[in-house]
Amino acid sequence: MPADFSTAAIEAASAPAKGPVLPFPEPFASLMKDRIRHPLGVHFGITNFGVNLTFLPPGSISALRHFHSHQDEFVYILEGTPLLVTRAGEMPLRPGMCAGFKAGSDNAHQLRNRSDTMAVYLEIGDRTGGDVVTYPDDDIKIDKMPDGRLQVVRKDGSPCMVASSEL
Amino acid sequence: MPADFSTAAIEAASAPAKGPVLPFPEPFASLMKDRIRHPLGVHFGITNFGVNLTFLPPGSISALRHFHSHQDEFVYILEGTPLLVTRAGEMPLRPGMCAGFKAGSDNAHQLRNRSDTMAVYLEIGDRTGGDVVTYPDDDIKIDKMPDGRLQVVRKDGSPCMVASSEL
Repeated sequence: MPADFSTAAIEAASAPAKGPVLPFPEPFASLMKDRIRHPLGVHFGITNFGVNLTFLPPGSISALRHFHSHQDEFVYILEGTPLLVTRAGEMPLRPGMCAGFKAGSDNAHQLRNRSDTMAVYLEIGDRTGGDVVTYPDDDIKIDKMPDGRLQVVRKDGSPCMVASSEL
Repeated sequence: MPADFSTAAIEAASAPAKGPVLPFPEPFASLMKDRIRHPLGVHFGITNFGVNLTFLPPGSISALRHFHSHQDEFVYILEGTPLLVTRAGEMPLRPGMCAGFKAGSDNAHQLRNRSDTMAVYLEIGDRTGGDVVTYPDDDIKIDKMPDGRLQVVRKDGSPCMVASSEL
């Protein structure tokens, strides 16, 4: 195959998985530790938005219930029956369903797999700068440290206890 | 369901389909006339990127082979076996495969369904301004008219003959 075939397609599940972006404290870390994300867009050099193929095992959550200030988000269910959790409650999803979360809407969302089978979905989010993520249910926020890195802290800015294995 | 449930999920295929964005001349119009796009992101008020659920019947193409100057593009195959056509030739796709097209890369792309079954895929593109689409194989370009609307013209700027039924 010619070297210039930078747009050659791939089997999405073959893309390398990535670990957690940020270390969360318990009990949240355990709810997310078995979630597996395969970043897809980055494989093709895409930078304007990200696409993950995500595997959510029984008992896992996609993230803490949250909303974004500037970045839109979208999910499309490929397999399984996760729940969409928002302010309105829990909505059962199935393959072929999708949901979108407009930046700035404070109706925070989360997927939660209460079934006994794997849920698989695509999640898409853009990379608009200045984004702030808010977690209305939990005493958690994300702060930017002086060196530019992000860290998970309590809402009053105090540090979270994070197991060293998650760092 | 409460009125504030703006993030309620939907069956993607139930989202209203949209017609062609721009009228193309023959022979291109016929190759695209049976393609059905269901815009999904707009249903949720998403504006930073677009997501379409697209049905590509046998004999149809996704678009003329093209590339974008500023907008990244990504496709994920849900059903069927369309071909990915790029400078490198034709690559057969199948469900679970994906491809991405970085803005500015001149390796133009297209999906073409040469099989005898429907192909179904998600296509995602961001909305970065100033985008220009280039069609290297065909005597086609898209011009902005004085009133801001876009139209398909020949590369020398002369008009295309477009059947009135497509207007």
